[in-house]
Amino acid sequence: MRRLVILAEGHFSVQGAKTAVGVLRFSSDETVAVIDSEHAGADVATVLASPGLGEGIPVVASITDALPFHPTSLLIGIAPIGGRLPDVWRPTIVRALEEGLEVISGLHIFLGEDHELRAAAERGGGRIWDVRQPPAAVAMHIGEGRPHRPGSHTIYFAGTDCNVGKMTAALVIERGARDRGWDAAFAATGQTGIMIAGAGVPVDRLISDFTSGGVEAMVSELAEQHAWVFVEGQGSLGHPAYAPVTLGLVHGAAPDAFILCHEAGREFVHGFPEFRIASLPTVMSMYTSAASWLGRTTPFVGVALNTYGMPDDAARAAIAETATSLGLPTTDPVRYGADVLLDALSDALI
Amino acid sequence: MRRLVILAEGHFSVQGAKTAVGVLRFSSDETVAVIDSEHAGADVATVLASPGLGEGIPVVASITDALPFHPTSLLIGIAPIGGRLPDVWRPTIVRALEEGLEVISGLHIFLGEDHELRAAAERGGGRIWDVRQPPAAVAMHIGEGRPHRPGSHTIYFAGTDCNVGKMTAALVIERGARDRGWDAAFAATGQTGIMIAGAGVPVDRLISDFTSGGVEAMVSELAEQHAWVFVEGQGSLGHPAYAPVTLGLVHGAAPDAFILCHEAGREFVHGFPEFRIASLPTVMSMYTSAASWLGRTTPFVGVALNTYGMPDDAARAAIAETATSLGLPTTDPVRYGADVLLDALSDALI
Repeated sequence: MRRLVILAEGHFSVQGAKTAVGVLRFSSDETVAVIDSEHAGADVATVLASPGLGEGIPVVASITDALPFHPTSLLIGIAPIGGRLPDVWRPTIVRALEEGLEVISGLHIFLGEDHELRAAAERGGGRIWDVRQPPAAVAMHIGEGRPHRPGSHTIYFAGTDCNVGKMTAALVIERGARDRGWDAAFAATGQTGIMIAGAGVPVDRLISDFTSGGVEAMVSELAEQHAWVFVEGQGSLGHPAYAPVTLGLVHGAAPDAFILCHEAGREFVHGFPEFRIASLPTVMSMYTSAASWLGRTTPFVGVALNTYGMPDDAARAAIAETATSLGLPTTDPVRYGADVLLDALSDALI
Repeated sequence: MRRLVILAEGHFSVQGAKTAVGVLRFSSDETVAVIDSEHAGADVATVLASPGLGEGIPVVASITDALPFHPTSLLIGIAPIGGRLPDVWRPTIVRALEEGLEVISGLHIFLGEDHELRAAAERGGGRIWDVRQPPAAVAMHIGEGRPHRPGSHTIYFAGTDCNVGKMTAALVIERGARDRGWDAAFAATGQTGIMIAGAGVPVDRLISDFTSGGVEAMVSELAEQHAWVFVEGQGSLGHPAYAPVTLGLVHGAAPDAFILCHEAGREFVHGFPEFRIASLPTVMSMYTSAASWLGRTTPFVGVALNTYGMPDDAARAAIAETATSLGLPTTDPVRYGADVLLDALSDALI
């Protein structure tokens, strides 16, 4: 079991530190401290304003202040602009490696290829886990389009955009399924999901020729072992930059059903203000079309609507409106639990 | 200008050595010899049974026999099973590097990362061009979905499968356009195309997150400089393994029009006998749907039908039938010239 210190310098909040918050919420590893000098002295629950999440976990100003809590690992919990390693983070990472800690990074740039960091790891006995380095077993796997084990159910969380809550919905529903006694697995496909699950395939980092194949290798293996496989979605088929990643997931995961994931009120593609997100029925038709290209008929069975930040009555109204307009069971599983969607899956697939 | 010796050991034929034949047909570099011990002593034109292609170019048994023709470069003209470097090729490549030749490779495995080959290059002064290594300028470019320069015309060659003649059609049409005095460029997107053009983006090797972006960087730059950009297509949107590569091309190239590329009589996906290729109208709807996901309306303006190996009357009948059933100008540009499709482009876009 790891004891994590999470680096979130200057950005520790629910919206600003997606990886940090995801790990705090879902990882089975214990978090012993969070680094953000702007909030040093507070506890995590206070900073996030989320009672029950991070109560008693201290926010500290530096790696030095975190060491007394005996961490085993420094986890980089924020994404830098442009994917490079900011110089200001270097001393923290060097110090962690010199102290013998594991450093867990989801950056596109691999810390294990950085001479200064490797030298620090050798000096101190630390090690580097570059989460976005594809596992060798899937890195050059060519897709075959094979059907899954009969009796298994694979569900893909199909987004209208990046950062709408696909991973969170998948994790909440996987947990709810296990609570019902279903044999369920979460297939992690992005850096935060892999940090939480401890394994997975960083799909956005696969070589494009092997995108479908790498996903297929992971998901078909999970479908051999489990009755339910909940596949974390990435991006959107309507995304101006990342749609090929999404298509590799849709084709490689070969889902039996989709759950639509949307953030209530989101109108434009995150970071691409000239691109309006299509209507929900149009987005759904993108996914069902893409599945049909390989001869598959894949229904939508429900909607996970992210209502973060909305008052309760507005959230319930948005959910009701979406359910009515699409004719699909809809909820915000983070706020209101997974039952609506688990019932929908059970009705559609069992 | 290079003087090429092409390695095609054991596989020199029109169907077995796609890269070798593409380079022979379209490269402005001179080929001085082809290595295939099974045909040593013949000339290229005889082996390929293609009068006018390779007349007088000798086929030799080994790199030793090729050296008297003063090559500057050894080009690997066949694809190994599985993308690895076969051990049996090693002595040939080592010898070329020791003799100071450039070695041009389109393999997924980079020769420049092989210690034995690097040592040979250092000993002999040879150098390695790994064509599939993405150029640094495009390797991590995030797609923006920007429109092209007004007045430019970008055409994407949309395949029903791998290996149906997309690159050849694009090259023949680009040449025909130049013969008409159009300001035309060929955008190479695969290893053979890049070897022929001397530059391009190996799209199947891009990191999946940057597939659309890498293509966009190349194509939008060409559209700044040229009136017509003919973009080599890859794979198919209905391909069980490679559809994400194709989608990155469709989104990144942002074409003004598609030309459909199909091999007459092909019924199943190459190498995937359980996957039947969809009807041509269905394949066309995949491409127009994918373009529409980014809000684009992209028409098909013609069909390049590959009739290789068919008798003339059967080829003409297949072309007429396709033209009638799809209602689109159709020809085999390799056999019958590019005029039908250039006229169609001119009618639709000028």
